[in-house]
Amino acid sequence: MKISVGISNRHVHLTVDDYKLLFGDEEMEKRNDLKQPGMFACNQVVTIKTPKKEINKVRVLGPVRSYTQVEISKTDAYSLGIDPPVRTSGDLDGASEIEIIGPCGSIIRKAAIIANRHIHVDEKIRKKHKLVGIEKVSVRKEGEKGATLDDVYLKDSENAYFELHLDTDDANALLLKNDDELEIII
Amino acid sequence: MKISVGISNRHVHLTVDDYKLLFGDEEMEKRNDLKQPGMFACNQVVTIKTPKKEINKVRVLGPVRSYTQVEISKTDAYSLGIDPPVRTSGDLDGASEIEIIGPCGSIIRKAAIIANRHIHVDEKIRKKHKLVGIEKVSVRKEGEKGATLDDVYLKDSENAYFELHLDTDDANALLLKNDDELEIII
Repeated sequence: MKISVGISNRHVHLTVDDYKLLFGDEEMEKRNDLKQPGMFACNQVVTIKTPKKEINKVRVLGPVRSYTQVEISKTDAYSLGIDPPVRTSGDLDGASEIEIIGPCGSIIRKAAIIANRHIHVDEKIRKKHKLVGIEKVSVRKEGEKGATLDDVYLKDSENAYFELHLDTDDANALLLKNDDELEIII
Repeated sequence: MKISVGISNRHVHLTVDDYKLLFGDEEMEKRNDLKQPGMFACNQVVTIKTPKKEINKVRVLGPVRSYTQVEISKTDAYSLGIDPPVRTSGDLDGASEIEIIGPCGSIIRKAAIIANRHIHVDEKIRKKHKLVGIEKVSVRKEGEKGATLDDVYLKDSENAYFELHLDTDDANALLLKNDDELEIII
């Protein structure tokens, strides 16, 4: 079965408290909706910084969450000089320390991870596509720089939009663009 | 059968004439040998530049060649704002225009490519590993962010060192380090 890909560039999720520390009274402004219901990219961006390097214009995603998390690629991690673990969003076990700088202040958090490859599903999608009880799958891209990526986790959320999320390392290695279709291999 | 990986960061090959335009009378200085016999990384580095961006400290590889070639990743290509083709080294058909800047001058060449995934072989290696007559294979990495990369070309040269060459996008997508071992799938 085919699934379309959404490519995640580096981005930040913030708690309401951390958002206020970085942006003060400035409200989150929606730049564009994401495909997962309720999720959006903000006009707000931050700088992420380590002793080795800083990366500017890292986008904040909304709405606020119960955790502050910085999702980067392994390529970013090398350039920042840190070694973050591969994690499911929200699992910050062993996450790398990083500074997050906004217009009103800066915070240091153990928040940097490399997001695992994942597919958004809900109960209805699992039933429709015979994915009930499955933890992870592989996805296959044919053609130039083709590959089968393993270790793709199914991630449950209510009213999910059925989409594969890959980071820029995976996407660039396979020459993928947003909305390209890959084959799910169970 | 297993093969160890060598990860190619962005680098430049130069003709003798282009080397002189960039470095004048300065001799190529060997920084370190590469595993392919006769090949070495130089102390010399250049800047590569497009109208969008420049990247500094791009290493020159020696010895000089019959063509000038800039090998970059897709990630680099996005940041430079160019769309180079995936090519075997030496095949510059459709290569992207790029400026190369050295201490003594700069040149503009249609020279930028994304190197294809490849394995260095010679006749002896082909015979030993039952690779005679084979154009390309796949390679498999197990474990976290595991994958099977297809479209891995066998590249013949005399006295080759049997090694898989991947660019930083492929390597970072699979969390590979130099000398990690992958399984060849024929």
